[in-house]
Amino acid sequence: MTPRKGSDAIHLPEGFSFSTANAGIKISGRPDLAFAEACAGTTAAAAFTRNRVVAAPVEVGRSSLAATRGRVRAVIVNSGNANCATGKPGWRACKRICAETARLLGVAIEEVFPSSTGIIGVPLPADKVLAKLPELISSRAASKDALLRFTHAILTTDTRTKLASSSFRFGEKEMKLVGVAKGAGMIHPQLATMLVYLFTDAVATPGQLKRLLTHACDESLNCLSIDGDTSTNDTALLMASGKSGISLNTSSAQAKFEKMLRDVCQSLAQQIVSDGEGVKHVIRLNIEEARSRNEGLVVARAISRSLLVKTAWAGADPNWGRILAAIGACGLSIDPTKVDISIGTQKVCRGGVSNPFDEGWAHADLSKKECDIHVRLRRGSASLIFLTTDLTSEYVRINADYST
Amino acid sequence: MTPRKGSDAIHLPEGFSFSTANAGIKISGRPDLAFAEACAGTTAAAAFTRNRVVAAPVEVGRSSLAATRGRVRAVIVNSGNANCATGKPGWRACKRICAETARLLGVAIEEVFPSSTGIIGVPLPADKVLAKLPELISSRAASKDALLRFTHAILTTDTRTKLASSSFRFGEKEMKLVGVAKGAGMIHPQLATMLVYLFTDAVATPGQLKRLLTHACDESLNCLSIDGDTSTNDTALLMASGKSGISLNTSSAQAKFEKMLRDVCQSLAQQIVSDGEGVKHVIRLNIEEARSRNEGLVVARAISRSLLVKTAWAGADPNWGRILAAIGACGLSIDPTKVDISIGTQKVCRGGVSNPFDEGWAHADLSKKECDIHVRLRRGSASLIFLTTDLTSEYVRINADYST
Repeated sequence: MTPRKGSDAIHLPEGFSFSTANAGIKISGRPDLAFAEACAGTTAAAAFTRNRVVAAPVEVGRSSLAATRGRVRAVIVNSGNANCATGKPGWRACKRICAETARLLGVAIEEVFPSSTGIIGVPLPADKVLAKLPELISSRAASKDALLRFTHAILTTDTRTKLASSSFRFGEKEMKLVGVAKGAGMIHPQLATMLVYLFTDAVATPGQLKRLLTHACDESLNCLSIDGDTSTNDTALLMASGKSGISLNTSSAQAKFEKMLRDVCQSLAQQIVSDGEGVKHVIRLNIEEARSRNEGLVVARAISRSLLVKTAWAGADPNWGRILAAIGACGLSIDPTKVDISIGTQKVCRGGVSNPFDEGWAHADLSKKECDIHVRLRRGSASLIFLTTDLTSEYVRINADYST
Repeated sequence: MTPRKGSDAIHLPEGFSFSTANAGIKISGRPDLAFAEACAGTTAAAAFTRNRVVAAPVEVGRSSLAATRGRVRAVIVNSGNANCATGKPGWRACKRICAETARLLGVAIEEVFPSSTGIIGVPLPADKVLAKLPELISSRAASKDALLRFTHAILTTDTRTKLASSSFRFGEKEMKLVGVAKGAGMIHPQLATMLVYLFTDAVATPGQLKRLLTHACDESLNCLSIDGDTSTNDTALLMASGKSGISLNTSSAQAKFEKMLRDVCQSLAQQIVSDGEGVKHVIRLNIEEARSRNEGLVVARAISRSLLVKTAWAGADPNWGRILAAIGACGLSIDPTKVDISIGTQKVCRGGVSNPFDEGWAHADLSKKECDIHVRLRRGSASLIFLTTDLTSEYVRINADYST
């Protein structure tokens, strides 16, 4: 699926309305609050970071979803401050925001799902958020423009908004799905992801959503890495309003929804990686003939974390020896004499040694905005595609200056 | 121990002679062959990379040392080509070089210890090396100047030579130790190290040397990381000529030698990290109150591999939240509410949350050439010091251009 941008491409599901505000949390003065309301009866499931250090909103969101057994009526996101490593006061700040949102909407506090993204270790100015809640609620709209504003307000170092959408007809009815995301650094998810919100009008139980979300994430948002750092705030939330009237109880509806969800998540993954901090080249790592999918992930993550590999890509340098060295250090008992590596369309390494190839051609392939690299392990039959990026001086510049 | 530079500081042990040559392997035209001869009876022990992808000279050196049960008569090192991922021809090239060196010296082929460092996956031009062997052997000298030339010829992207030396008197006799090293990138050793050669005139069995070397490496060369990439060629070789007449069979001699070896290895580790590619700041990570030394290493390595942590250091940014996030993602079940972090002399994080500190002061501490960071885990009583570096745009520039 190709990413779809602009309001024309949005299949807006019924049952959700959106608004944004500027609370003054971001020093830049750009919008830093995003709000979504979900209609009564909306079901939900979420996946969270595997980092042991988790932000207050992740703790609160996780326990709220458990308390409601998968019900969400509102999402409140702030950007510019992660509300992480802020201790009990950070947790209280998050709860205060949820409580006030719930009071204004007339819903239960646990039905308000919070998220934060930004700097770690700085107290969240809850009062700034609380002061904007009435404006957020009164200005909400079930419109594509409001959703587009939502995609802007959740950004931090991102240079572009991320949105993907899909729909399908089922008899007379239509089911819609739209996903929005942010994420440009600290991107190396562990069975969860950056901030991703998926809105659909399907009729689904929280259990169905959980299973479908986990499955879709495994093939998209968990298969990417920008800088190898796992965030403390990664969250993917899938909400279903039920307004389409199409239930996921039939296998044909479920199959269609599953494909739609995977397409949207893969498009968002692609958009997140393309907009990675300082990224000039996106690499599609195709790991082939691994013993298991998990083994393939270990290899892909090792390659995608190697600074020497990533800097070679920045220079469009077909230095496959660094890829082989990264595989050798991944912790698995890989036999290097079995490994083949291709860059673009050329096999550059066969059985662990150099295979004659046209270096100019390989350099040209790596100079493209996106390049495929295939790694064949000859250990089994599992394969996966993992999205990653080069490492440029621009990345260093962005992150050496972040909080100073 | 402070690093000692220049020929005055060298305590040259008897029994070794050195020479260098220019074989034309390096494009730069700088010296790329280094040779050391050891007198008859020299014992040796080595530590090697834990990468599954190992260079031909590592394979050959390991099996030769096993075959001789710890005897070495010569060391032949080339820089500019790693002779790694070069398959059977690479192995044969290495053996040819050892065989010809052995023939010229009249020693066994297994007594010649080979090393290579440089680009991976490019065939080693063995003929260029073979052509220079007579010159290397005829020009060898047991002098400090010859040793200093040796330290130059083993370098790749290093900007400085690395040497440390020590000696002690034992009654009427004196025991000497000198170590030389190279290493500026692909530095993240796993129970081995970059290229390090340690020459001493102690009387020691190979078994004593192995135990002492392992112990010394654990507290020095294994406790550092520049870029998180584990090399395919890491080698540390300790040789003892016996010429001092001081045996390590007494516990007092052994204790003195142990301290001398640790001091020299720690100095070399310090010199290697200071000269890391693009390094502006060296960080001494003090991991405290870990459950075990190994746990401390896991935490130290996770911090030292985080791009966000390393780029923050490049900007002298006291962004401790990134350190905490890296600890949280290290794979151990660390309780973040127990973690304290200090930068320089100030505690910036107490129990996982911000502790009031002077940001300007912390910035000034991190702006120094070297800065201590303390991480207290409150899980046990193990502690260690780990040397690591910042990540600068200069590192990216060096490594994006390496082979193109």
